[in-house]
Amino acid sequence: MNQRSNRQVRLAARPVGLPKPTDWSFVDEPVRALADGEVLVKVLYLSLDPAMRGWMNDARSYIRPVAIDEVMRAGGVGIVVESKSPRFKEGDHVVGSLNVQHFAVLPEKALTKVDPRLAPLPVYLSVLGMPGMTAYFGLLEVGQPVAGNTVVVSGAAGAVGTVVGQIAKIKGCRVVGIAGGAEKCAYVVKELGFDAAIDYKAEDVKKALRTHCPEGIDVYFDNVGGDILEAALANLARKARIVVCGAISQYNATEAVKGPSNYLSLLVNRARMEGMVVFDYADRYAEAAREMAGWMAQGKLKSKEDIVQGFDTFPERLLMLFKGENTGKLVLQV
Amino acid sequence: MNQRSNRQVRLAARPVGLPKPTDWSFVDEPVRALADGEVLVKVLYLSLDPAMRGWMNDARSYIRPVAIDEVMRAGGVGIVVESKSPRFKEGDHVVGSLNVQHFAVLPEKALTKVDPRLAPLPVYLSVLGMPGMTAYFGLLEVGQPVAGNTVVVSGAAGAVGTVVGQIAKIKGCRVVGIAGGAEKCAYVVKELGFDAAIDYKAEDVKKALRTHCPEGIDVYFDNVGGDILEAALANLARKARIVVCGAISQYNATEAVKGPSNYLSLLVNRARMEGMVVFDYADRYAEAAREMAGWMAQGKLKSKEDIVQGFDTFPERLLMLFKGENTGKLVLQV
Repeated sequence: MNQRSNRQVRLAARPVGLPKPTDWSFVDEPVRALADGEVLVKVLYLSLDPAMRGWMNDARSYIRPVAIDEVMRAGGVGIVVESKSPRFKEGDHVVGSLNVQHFAVLPEKALTKVDPRLAPLPVYLSVLGMPGMTAYFGLLEVGQPVAGNTVVVSGAAGAVGTVVGQIAKIKGCRVVGIAGGAEKCAYVVKELGFDAAIDYKAEDVKKALRTHCPEGIDVYFDNVGGDILEAALANLARKARIVVCGAISQYNATEAVKGPSNYLSLLVNRARMEGMVVFDYADRYAEAAREMAGWMAQGKLKSKEDIVQGFDTFPERLLMLFKGENTGKLVLQV
Repeated sequence: MNQRSNRQVRLAARPVGLPKPTDWSFVDEPVRALADGEVLVKVLYLSLDPAMRGWMNDARSYIRPVAIDEVMRAGGVGIVVESKSPRFKEGDHVVGSLNVQHFAVLPEKALTKVDPRLAPLPVYLSVLGMPGMTAYFGLLEVGQPVAGNTVVVSGAAGAVGTVVGQIAKIKGCRVVGIAGGAEKCAYVVKELGFDAAIDYKAEDVKKALRTHCPEGIDVYFDNVGGDILEAALANLARKARIVVCGAISQYNATEAVKGPSNYLSLLVNRARMEGMVVFDYADRYAEAAREMAGWMAQGKLKSKEDIVQGFDTFPERLLMLFKGENTGKLVLQV
C-alpha cells in the first residue's frame, strides 16, 4: 500500500455566480495502490481555465459535470513516480486530466508523454496544450481565415486569444485584439505583433471596431460573449465567420445569459456563427503541436504563461480568470 | 405622353411597431413616357412578404430602405402594355420588382419573362418566385440536409416554410413544422406530407420538439426568431445547422430584438447558425426553377397561394403576415 498522502480540492457545492471558498473542500487521503496498467503521477503544474466554471454546473454540456464531492477536474503536467504500465517509467513527464490534487492515479491511456527538453513544462498546458489546440483548430478549421482578412479576437491577452492572434498574423491576416486594460493591450501589440488592440474597459468597443476594421470583420474569435459579441456582430463583413469558443462574461451570470440582440446581422451579412469544442480534434493534436512547435522555434509564436504558486491558493487563483487578472495562460504550480 | 393614371401606395412615415394606415399614402399620377429600353407593365399580382417590414426601416441591411414618399417596394407579376425594348412585346408576362402600384415603368434588365401556360401567374411569386428560391437555396445550400436528417421549419405554413418542408421530404428527411393553429398544422401534415407539426399557439414548443425530434434537430430553418429560435437551439443535434432566413416575430418589435439567450448551445453542439439572402443566388434562379417545376409536375411539390383582392386593401393585407392569417404565399391581386 502506498503511504503517500494526496491533498485534493473537491467540489463541495455548485456555485451561484463566482465560486466562493465554501464551494470547495480540501481533503487529504492516502494514495491508493496501483492496478495493472495504471500510473501514479505527481502533479507539478495545473491548468486554470475559464471552461472549469462550466464543469461546475449541473447542466448538459460537451462534458459531464464534476460531481459534488468529486476532485475538481483540471488538466495538468506531472512526473511519473510509480508505474504499472510498460508505456511509462518513473521520471517520465506526462500531461493529462490530472485534476486538482497532488497525486493522480490514472490508466496509461489517459496520459501523454511530453519532453521537457523541447519546451518548458508549463508550455504543455499553454501553446502545446488545450489553449493552443483550441486556438489552432478554432481559428483555422472554424474561422477559416484567408490572407488579408481582418481577424478580431476577444480575451486577446488570455491563453487562447494570444495564440489565435499570433496564428492569424502567421496566416497573413490583419489582427485586432480586445482586452481589458492598457497593459494587456500594449502587450498584444508590442510583444505579440497584433495590428491593434481595443481596451474594452476604456473604449466603446463597437466604435473602436468600426475604426480599426473599416472593411468589417471577416473572422471574429469569441472567448467572451455578452456586449463584446454584440459589438462584433455590429461590425461584420460580408460572409464573416464567428467562432464561438467561449463566453467568459456569462459563465458566472446569475441571471439568464444575454443572447446577442443583433444576431440578425448574420442574415444581413450572410455570416455564420459556429461553436467548437477542442476535444473533437484530439486525433490531430500531434499534427497541430508539431506545426506550432515549429513556429515557436522560428520565433513566430510566443508562449506566455502566468504562473502562480501554491496548491492551497487554487480557489482564489481560479477567480483571476473571471476578474481578468491574468495575461497569458494561467498555471498553478503545485 | 401616356394618359394612363398610375395609382400607387407610398411610404408616408416610418412605422413604429406594426405599420398603421397613416404610414401609407395613396397617390395617383400619370404614367410617364417610356425611354428607349424601357417597358410599361400593368401590375396583375403583388407579392406580400414579411421582408417588406424590414425595408420600411431606416437601417443598414441587405438592401437599401424604401425612402419616405417613395412607392413601396414589392415583387410582382404583370403584363407588358407598351415596350421600347426589343426583348419584350405587348402581351408578354413578366416578373420583377414592380412595386405597389398599378403600372410600372422599368428598364428591360429589371424584368424576367414568364410563361402563364407552364404555371398560373401567382406561382411565379410563390414556389417559382422569391419564396421558392429562398427555400431552395436556404435549405439546400446553407442547411445542407442529408437523407435521414431531422429538419425543423418555423413559419411552416407560410410561403417559404411550405416549400422548405416539401423539399426536405423530397431529400429524404424527417420534417417537423412549427405553425400557429390547428388548421395550419393539419395542412402541412395532411396536404404537404410533413411528418409532424407543432402548434406554437397551443403547445410548449421546446417540449414538443423534444418529443418529435428525439435525436435532436439536424437542420432548423428559422423564419420567425424569438422564443421559437430558443426552443430549437435547446434541441439541436451535434453539428446542427440553423438557417437564419428571417425573424418575423421580431420585425415589429418596438423594444430591442430578443437575442437567443441559449446561443451557447452552438458551442455545446458544435452547431452553426448562418444567415442567407436569396439575392446572392440570382445567377442560379433558373436552375432552381427548373428543378422545382419538375417536382411540381411530378406532384412532389405543391404550390399554395393565398390570393386576396383589391389594390386599396394593401395596408391591411400586409398585416395578415404578422398576424399569421395567411396559409401559403400571400398574394394581392390588383
